[in-house]
Amino acid sequence: MIHDYNDAAIRMHKTNKGKLSIVSKVNLNSKEDLSLAYTPGVAAVCNEIFKDPSSVFESTLKSNTIAIVSDGSAILGLGNLGASASIPVMEGKAAILKEFAGVDAFPICIQSQDIEEIISIVKNIAPVFGGINLEDIASPKCFEIEKRLKEELDIPVMHDDQWGAATVALAALINSIKLSGKEKSDIKLVLSGVGAAGVATAKLLIAYGIRDITLIDSKGVIYKDRNDLNKEKIDLLELVTNNSPKTRNLSDALVGADVFIGLSKPNVLTKEMVESMNERSIIFALANPSPEIMPEDAKLFGAYIVATGRSDYPNQINNSLVFPGFWKGMLNRRSLDINNNKAKDYSMDTFVEIAKAIADAVKDLSPDKIIPDMFDKSIVDVVAKIVSNVK
Amino acid sequence: MIHDYNDAAIRMHKTNKGKLSIVSKVNLNSKEDLSLAYTPGVAAVCNEIFKDPSSVFESTLKSNTIAIVSDGSAILGLGNLGASASIPVMEGKAAILKEFAGVDAFPICIQSQDIEEIISIVKNIAPVFGGINLEDIASPKCFEIEKRLKEELDIPVMHDDQWGAATVALAALINSIKLSGKEKSDIKLVLSGVGAAGVATAKLLIAYGIRDITLIDSKGVIYKDRNDLNKEKIDLLELVTNNSPKTRNLSDALVGADVFIGLSKPNVLTKEMVESMNERSIIFALANPSPEIMPEDAKLFGAYIVATGRSDYPNQINNSLVFPGFWKGMLNRRSLDINNNKAKDYSMDTFVEIAKAIADAVKDLSPDKIIPDMFDKSIVDVVAKIVSNVK
Repeated sequence: MIHDYNDAAIRMHKTNKGKLSIVSKVNLNSKEDLSLAYTPGVAAVCNEIFKDPSSVFESTLKSNTIAIVSDGSAILGLGNLGASASIPVMEGKAAILKEFAGVDAFPICIQSQDIEEIISIVKNIAPVFGGINLEDIASPKCFEIEKRLKEELDIPVMHDDQWGAATVALAALINSIKLSGKEKSDIKLVLSGVGAAGVATAKLLIAYGIRDITLIDSKGVIYKDRNDLNKEKIDLLELVTNNSPKTRNLSDALVGADVFIGLSKPNVLTKEMVESMNERSIIFALANPSPEIMPEDAKLFGAYIVATGRSDYPNQINNSLVFPGFWKGMLNRRSLDINNNKAKDYSMDTFVEIAKAIADAVKDLSPDKIIPDMFDKSIVDVVAKIVSNVK
Repeated sequence: MIHDYNDAAIRMHKTNKGKLSIVSKVNLNSKEDLSLAYTPGVAAVCNEIFKDPSSVFESTLKSNTIAIVSDGSAILGLGNLGASASIPVMEGKAAILKEFAGVDAFPICIQSQDIEEIISIVKNIAPVFGGINLEDIASPKCFEIEKRLKEELDIPVMHDDQWGAATVALAALINSIKLSGKEKSDIKLVLSGVGAAGVATAKLLIAYGIRDITLIDSKGVIYKDRNDLNKEKIDLLELVTNNSPKTRNLSDALVGADVFIGLSKPNVLTKEMVESMNERSIIFALANPSPEIMPEDAKLFGAYIVATGRSDYPNQINNSLVFPGFWKGMLNRRSLDINNNKAKDYSMDTFVEIAKAIADAVKDLSPDKIIPDMFDKSIVDVVAKIVSNVK
């Protein structure tokens, strides 16, 4: 079954020779057409950009085009397969951006996996783009690359593996807590997996007001005296209340916990662990394609609400609910005021507001419906509206 | 009039917000669609590319997409206006490639104007592309960049300002010589302007068999004892017969000449110069947008055949006759044999063959019809066929 599925995907990609095509928005049927779109008329457009650099946002593809940038160092759950192997994923993101939000996006797949070189290349090719979506770049170098590009470029930069995933998870959690009848200030949460998505999810949870968080990486519970932590993990420990070595592993940490969020590995959650959680427990098993526990098992062992990244179960946590609207909103902000260099800025609060709005958009809330369907096209504008209005 | 024309071009560009759009070739209307185009199905395509790198030419946009690369250092006749101001020209080239030849092309406009940095950036972003079209990069650095990228990349690389322009000029010259009743071995030719297009034109003329060429740059006639020559000019002097300081300027050189090809500056050709040329003289005044002499003047002073780069006179020498077919043919070669790493190679003879084929395609040959109309869509396949069949 899985094998056939793979074959179907390969066949579809070869039949279409990839997923993206570049088209002209203008007719080129006469010398008159060509004199406006190309020489000699185009010279006036070039000269205007040279004299007024902001006009590039009005008269070129920069107005509506972003780059999907990857070095292929962390492709889906496949690992470091390099730039060429990342192309099908980046084409897929671009196709979704166009189909869901009308945003033009082009894959920039970079051979180098060196932080400084990636930063330099992206800065050098930025003129054509209205935004930079970073994708499938390994943790922890993704943090430095995003931070530096946000500082050094005059267009918005966003690492979707961090913020897309984290924002949808927070949206789903907001509705889950509401259904559980608990208060966010009382929630005891265990977060397993502290890579790109895990770090961003922890930051958003904290920004939302959840502080009793136990962070678990591949070595076990993260606490202050561990000497193998990167900067992001050390910074997170300053913000959560559970930062001493009271517990050493996932089993201990889950005793009495209200929420488990997994961004880690398949099948790490056992019957005993689920049973040891607090009543009305919430389990987001987001490892892809195989979750930390199968939803039917989690329910059987007593979980109140279960979500995964899978499309074949209820409550799919999928970043497609966020990134199309995010980029539509960002490009719209600039188009409203092309001279506004602040139009590239956003904060953690932007994602918290997006998460709240996505949560609010679910009208028929139930334990099997905590998040909008990813084909609910109305969500794009819910998200875009918040991003467009960021002050 | 010119002012209105410029305004119309700027208006058109702003109304359309640039000229290019990126579209999805596949539907994304259901979870099934998304499971093939994106996760989980896409993982099989990524894995296949990782295991068999040549499959990237089959299952991604690389199959039909080239980069139009510029650093904005020599935009049209406007000079060094930088990367952002070059975007409208690169979008125009991409629009022509799609409309004329069905080739997808995307603008890569690079901030850096350093040779090594440009080479490194293009190599790093090459995975997504099936070819690299260099554009509007200043001479002489364009020669080094093209040479190195041709050596170091496994996809075809071509600098259109050199080869596109030179090939169309040679095609027009082949027909002009035929009409004049002269033999190519007897032709005495003066080439004014030895930048990117001039150097390539000289090389192609030599490859075609014209050796009595006087080269003139902004300082005057090029001869061996001049101590201000770059490598390309020195190399050319080895191949032409007119390489001693018998003449020092354009006026001297044109006495008795059969052909003048100008890729230089407006209005440098005088009545006296044209009158001093051999009978049945051929004048290609290709400076853009204002030629070295206006066609009506050249004819009045005795020229037999006149061509320019302008669309409002007969005999327009425009590289749009070459680059769309060149890239269609190059991508076709690879698609016929994706494992053929030689599919990137071509030689000067390839362009000579293209020029001969374009010349042959003119059926109603006359002094006012030495070259096909640039909207003659049959030329794309004439050119593509030659490139596809290069051994």
